[in-house]
Amino acid sequence: MSELLYENERIDQLYADDIQIIQSHEVFSFSLDAVLLANFAGLPKRGTIVDLCAGNGAVSLFMSRKTSAHIIGVELQERLADMGRRSIQLNGLESQLSMLTMDLKNVTHAIKKDSVDLVVCNPPYFKELPTNQKNPNPYLAIARHEIKTNLDTVIQESSGLLKFNGKLAIVHRPERLLDILETMKKYHIMPKRVQFVYPKSGKEANILLVEGIRQGKPGGLKILPPLQVYDEQGNYLDAVRSMLYGE
Amino acid sequence: MSELLYENERIDQLYADDIQIIQSHEVFSFSLDAVLLANFAGLPKRGTIVDLCAGNGAVSLFMSRKTSAHIIGVELQERLADMGRRSIQLNGLESQLSMLTMDLKNVTHAIKKDSVDLVVCNPPYFKELPTNQKNPNPYLAIARHEIKTNLDTVIQESSGLLKFNGKLAIVHRPERLLDILETMKKYHIMPKRVQFVYPKSGKEANILLVEGIRQGKPGGLKILPPLQVYDEQGNYLDAVRSMLYGE
Repeated sequence: MSELLYENERIDQLYADDIQIIQSHEVFSFSLDAVLLANFAGLPKRGTIVDLCAGNGAVSLFMSRKTSAHIIGVELQERLADMGRRSIQLNGLESQLSMLTMDLKNVTHAIKKDSVDLVVCNPPYFKELPTNQKNPNPYLAIARHEIKTNLDTVIQESSGLLKFNGKLAIVHRPERLLDILETMKKYHIMPKRVQFVYPKSGKEANILLVEGIRQGKPGGLKILPPLQVYDEQGNYLDAVRSMLYGE
Repeated sequence: MSELLYENERIDQLYADDIQIIQSHEVFSFSLDAVLLANFAGLPKRGTIVDLCAGNGAVSLFMSRKTSAHIIGVELQERLADMGRRSIQLNGLESQLSMLTMDLKNVTHAIKKDSVDLVVCNPPYFKELPTNQKNPNPYLAIARHEIKTNLDTVIQESSGLLKFNGKLAIVHRPERLLDILETMKKYHIMPKRVQFVYPKSGKEANILLVEGIRQGKPGGLKILPPLQVYDEQGNYLDAVRSMLYGE
């Protein structure tokens, strides 16, 4: 397998889904957010799923074991998309998964409008530009900050891709809740399921999961049971452990 | 005390705050929502608090022990406001609490604009009108359904009452989340704290608490730790038990 790995890359394993994934702390490593999104999204059994801001393909790879749908990752940064393509090879998933290198604002040039069953997205979280000039790692800066895209574009393009009643699932920060709900509504995606993820008991939520339905009827928003990640000792609680290790 | 009670009324006790409250299952009884709201709202130490849709004054009475602020209840239905006034007497709180009978759409005729530190509201939850024609209890119908007021009016009037940086705290149903956040923003109240209340482990949220700040800066929305009401056996969990019984 080593011919698939470049310098300073490693192969990590997501045990729960028996997926190997090429990572690099210098370029991109998936976080818990990707695992949570892959488990939260209402996956169609077949059809087409698009993973916007796909990074190294983590969300696409984690979803692949739970659906027969075709999954297309869309990533702006070729270095990350290339890691994703090598991970697809590593797992022998070339017939189900593919990865496009492109700006998502052009995504409907590459993928037919109104054709997608589910769009998932783990977008850049931060509005403001990075201020740490000492270490302006461009890969991480683009993945984390709204430099090359923003929430409005992500949701507008998602809406363009989705079929009538197709779903959009996003992972983001709780402080962007109002932005996300409003922007979904602006592009005719009705929010239907929200889940908040809390690091520990007694702490504020630090991760937000939202799913909406294109041209869904108004109303009927559900707030799913809270998901707590760690116990008091800093160990994963059962729900998260099972997403990671399948236990 | 019995001269304060009418037929089919009873006196209930909120032990945690040592408050007695006149109730009637035929007219109005407070629910857990009132207790949650009184405990969620960020109470000023002094100044003025207005309780819109005050019903029998439950939220006002429960807040009275936690602040020296003057509290004014505003209730449309004279029958309910009158129960509230008798409860104020019963608790000897006439110098701190008062109750106005009026439509809240006229509230700034009675209470000075831009003068209030905190508005709390436990409004009618349901958009649709009651469909059960067999038992059209008018007291309960008006308290529960948006017949005589609605969310837009409640938040518009609240914004009119509030000082710069005054707070609005609302208890509502989670499915109205987007409505509430949007309407707050429309009237220049920036949502800052949200808490979801879940009946039991593994269930969806059934109560929403939201607090916003008039002319607050955008951003900084916090999702507070989830509040679960009952354990598996249907007993109150500690956080709620202490709101009810002070244990």
